[in-house]
Amino acid sequence: MILASFGVAVLSAVLAMSAAAQSFAGGKWIDLTHPFDSDTIYWPTAKTFEKQTVFEGRTPGGYFYSAYNFCSAEHGGTHMDAPVHFAEGALPADRVPVSQLIGPGVVIDVADRVATDVDYLVGPADIEQHEKAHGRIPRGAIVLLRTGRATLYPDAEKYMGTAERGEQAVAKLHFPGLSKEGAETLVARGIGAVGIDTPSIDHGPSKDFAAHVALMTHNIPALENIADMSELPPRGSTIIALPMKIKGGSGGPLRIVAHVPSP
Amino acid sequence: MILASFGVAVLSAVLAMSAAAQSFAGGKWIDLTHPFDSDTIYWPTAKTFEKQTVFEGRTPGGYFYSAYNFCSAEHGGTHMDAPVHFAEGALPADRVPVSQLIGPGVVIDVADRVATDVDYLVGPADIEQHEKAHGRIPRGAIVLLRTGRATLYPDAEKYMGTAERGEQAVAKLHFPGLSKEGAETLVARGIGAVGIDTPSIDHGPSKDFAAHVALMTHNIPALENIADMSELPPRGSTIIALPMKIKGGSGGPLRIVAHVPSP
Repeated sequence: MILASFGVAVLSAVLAMSAAAQSFAGGKWIDLTHPFDSDTIYWPTAKTFEKQTVFEGRTPGGYFYSAYNFCSAEHGGTHMDAPVHFAEGALPADRVPVSQLIGPGVVIDVADRVATDVDYLVGPADIEQHEKAHGRIPRGAIVLLRTGRATLYPDAEKYMGTAERGEQAVAKLHFPGLSKEGAETLVARGIGAVGIDTPSIDHGPSKDFAAHVALMTHNIPALENIADMSELPPRGSTIIALPMKIKGGSGGPLRIVAHVPSP
Repeated sequence: MILASFGVAVLSAVLAMSAAAQSFAGGKWIDLTHPFDSDTIYWPTAKTFEKQTVFEGRTPGGYFYSAYNFCSAEHGGTHMDAPVHFAEGALPADRVPVSQLIGPGVVIDVADRVATDVDYLVGPADIEQHEKAHGRIPRGAIVLLRTGRATLYPDAEKYMGTAERGEQAVAKLHFPGLSKEGAETLVARGIGAVGIDTPSIDHGPSKDFAAHVALMTHNIPALENIADMSELPPRGSTIIALPMKIKGGSGGPLRIVAHVPSP
């Protein structure tokens, strides 16, 4: 009788969960997000993250309380570039569909090529080589480019070529990115979003931001400064990338996590 | 031959997706997040949301570009209270486990009781009544309290009793919340997080913030100013609630979405 009641309780708990919630119960979560603090990496010309203490301690009411205010550029740390960042009239941060930001994860690993060329551009050949080994990129995929640079974060000089701030530092930026043709290939696959473990989807020396423009004119957002992806498989993960919902925003802070099912 | 290749392509696309990604392919996403703008609701004493234009238009390089900076209190709009907001030494915003913020959704609807008592406190009886009808709340559930007030947002006077700002306005706050005993009942169920469609998990007249303290001393975060839940079933949804990763933060902007499977 005890066993029978236990069975009913378990059945009832399982019935209360959707298939998605059940599939998340196994496997593990990997947080692909760098925290926001005074070390957070920003473009050399962007306003950095500031946090001010409002209150921290015991209140006259007898309970503990802590609260802070903060300021930031939309584009810094782990963040989303909304399509309107580089395409007039394209989707702002609050209007990128959720269905585009949650989907099957595809990780294209180019760390070996970046090791010998810091300004390496991921192109169609890298994408096709990945597809040959792991299958065609599915529609709605969230494609993450692993350059292996996440482990250098937040050392700005190592991570992006310079720790200097201001306009004159932009010419000193060096890090890998996605080529214009690579961006066009991903657009043709009907992906939901593309992410990279560098400060920008265009590489450091870019002057025309051609990958941004190619993606964003097709309403594909870019996810930048993604944290270490080394625990992610080339395919089979689920990526959830939810940005702060800034009305009319050109982007904003992003929380991005991956679920990797049990082997 | 063509049909056979098509079959292989479909099979290959399905194999590339995890069970979770596949289960999200059907059903629909509901965004439970209010946007951040100049109308965003804050506590009468908190710093409101401000957005400044950095650039908006055609650049000398020939491409369009838009970017903004923003400032905010951690606690405003749709946001998370991290446990350290009301419990010394408890988890800050960046350290609340992702596994606690993604899970089966349970919606307890008390809108009928709130209709006749704006300061209604959701208590153990409401929770037990819900369980009698829909089964026991599973461990790790994200329990959302639907008071029906989300549709009044962002009209501060209707939504929370006053549109005044400053310390003297706090005494004029009126909206429903969770009782201390209700919070203790949810802690006993081993839930991951609790959310509500009002500015605070304690009701408007609260002076001791007993629900906050009861939840947060057990490292349970509260999700506040959740948007309209009327399309969510009492159980069977999957809730994904990802906050901005502010290091040491007492909370912060939250993006919360629900997946409702096809019937």
